[in-house]
Amino acid sequence: MIEPGLPDFTDVLLAAARIAPHAEVTPVLRSRALDALSGARLHFKAEHLQRGGAFKFRGACNAVWSLDEARAARGVVTHSSGNHGAALALAARTRGIGCHVVVPDGAVAAKLSNIVRHGATLWRCEPSIAARERTCAEVQANTGACLVHPYTDAAVIAGQGTATLELLGQADGLDVLVVPVGGGGLASGAALALRGAAPGCELVLAEPAGAADTARSLAAGERRIDFVPDTVCDGLRGTLGGPNFSILQAAGAEVVTVADADTVQAMRLLWQVLKQVVEPSSAIALAAVLSVPERFAGRRVGLVLSGGNVDLDALPWAAAA
Amino acid sequence: MIEPGLPDFTDVLLAAARIAPHAEVTPVLRSRALDALSGARLHFKAEHLQRGGAFKFRGACNAVWSLDEARAARGVVTHSSGNHGAALALAARTRGIGCHVVVPDGAVAAKLSNIVRHGATLWRCEPSIAARERTCAEVQANTGACLVHPYTDAAVIAGQGTATLELLGQADGLDVLVVPVGGGGLASGAALALRGAAPGCELVLAEPAGAADTARSLAAGERRIDFVPDTVCDGLRGTLGGPNFSILQAAGAEVVTVADADTVQAMRLLWQVLKQVVEPSSAIALAAVLSVPERFAGRRVGLVLSGGNVDLDALPWAAAA
Repeated sequence: MIEPGLPDFTDVLLAAARIAPHAEVTPVLRSRALDALSGARLHFKAEHLQRGGAFKFRGACNAVWSLDEARAARGVVTHSSGNHGAALALAARTRGIGCHVVVPDGAVAAKLSNIVRHGATLWRCEPSIAARERTCAEVQANTGACLVHPYTDAAVIAGQGTATLELLGQADGLDVLVVPVGGGGLASGAALALRGAAPGCELVLAEPAGAADTARSLAAGERRIDFVPDTVCDGLRGTLGGPNFSILQAAGAEVVTVADADTVQAMRLLWQVLKQVVEPSSAIALAAVLSVPERFAGRRVGLVLSGGNVDLDALPWAAAA
Repeated sequence: MIEPGLPDFTDVLLAAARIAPHAEVTPVLRSRALDALSGARLHFKAEHLQRGGAFKFRGACNAVWSLDEARAARGVVTHSSGNHGAALALAARTRGIGCHVVVPDGAVAAKLSNIVRHGATLWRCEPSIAARERTCAEVQANTGACLVHPYTDAAVIAGQGTATLELLGQADGLDVLVVPVGGGGLASGAALALRGAAPGCELVLAEPAGAADTARSLAAGERRIDFVPDTVCDGLRGTLGGPNFSILQAAGAEVVTVADADTVQAMRLLWQVLKQVVEPSSAIALAAVLSVPERFAGRRVGLVLSGGNVDLDALPWAAAA
């Protein structure tokens, strides 16, 4: 696979203009209680309130609206365990074009019903990378649809960067930004936005201990993605992408790895105190802050709550009860 | 008990000014999906994001800051094992005065610790109305504390009215406002706010079928409060207060009674679509709209999401699973 040219800050600015007619400007939430608990001043960027219930709509929307007329007419296709698939379906609908989503067996039910509700065609496959890439290639061959990769696509990365760009405009003078990292779309977009708009703001990536390929890759200086993910954070099981790695490495991003138990506890806190339905992949950012409080004490901290698509019948704390 | 003088619109305006330094201006939430589902344009006033997790802080705060210095110095007292007790404790703390809360034996430990966390003194009594009124009177006699009733107190009613006043400023031109009704503090406050700020806006009260004393009282033209509440809406089990009845009757408020099953379904929708943790007593407003869609079709509807204090280990849909 040929790695596409890396996007830059200008691409984030262009993405912001391109998606503005379609995406929500999500609010920034504060909490006295969580500030007291953390010892820091926390600013939660509420991307679970984005259309489709996750930041993913930003990247998908930018990708869909970046296509020329002829390419757009043949539709788009992707493989995704959930949020990106729903986001691409929704984005395709904003332009009135077709969308195909390849999903592995065993994906979260709430996320699949979102994809279907937004009018996309579902293609099921076995839960292996080989199977989903094969199925994806078949759909491309049959329809001529344009592949929109969930996190290595340059337009997707630039689109995700708009979440951080927007946050920087809403919460001035952040000292540090904490974002979850899985494949690295959100994280690398954040790095681009910080580079152009807040070069003094540090970037911390929150990563599950059971899927810590980004931590290993940045430590090794090269991608180390041979692992079997084992984490409650279903949105962070993907392997760090090539362009994502390059951007994060150049940004000097730091990784905090988080145990699932801490993520579940943080998720419960966010539900109870912030009254927000967020998924584990969002809560991990707060868990990271609470796990190394001295790292954040007294500072202005941005945290991206990446999504809120949760199966309400299978809450992680219910399993332990 | 002597019924206090009824508050009016001016009292709501004064309350808004009085609580402004302490209360949150809560946001108004919208949802394309819920608009499509209801056929109406829904504006959700997010009082579950108020301090203490419920609108109750508004009334308690207004009551606490309405006292003159001499009375305030002797503190406040109330009987409540729920949101009002915690709200009064929090409000007393904003003024640095004492707070006493009489709670019946057997009250939920989590709720009590909430009250204690905000610095109030707990007084336990037997779980009967006679016992709690006697204990309350004893605390008043011994301390000189001022009684702040959860919903008949004039300052509490005026304070609750600020939620509607604020909503009217955020969402212009509402055709109809839907609020839950239990004891009637929120509802009668809403009636006062509408009378002064939006007299053309209709007032609909959402009431559990298993605690429909307001519906019966307004139909009969006099209070009918002899009933045993049976509803999942733990915030709406109180009996309609005297002043509350008078205000609601004068306002020509209409009641929609709602079955608990519909409330639970609406609560799940709000969690899944709005991503908001709201309690059944909040969700009943949406359930009312969805139960008589023709009543609201095409109209601009305000709904007060009254609170978000939920036991995450005992969700109502889990019981049915």
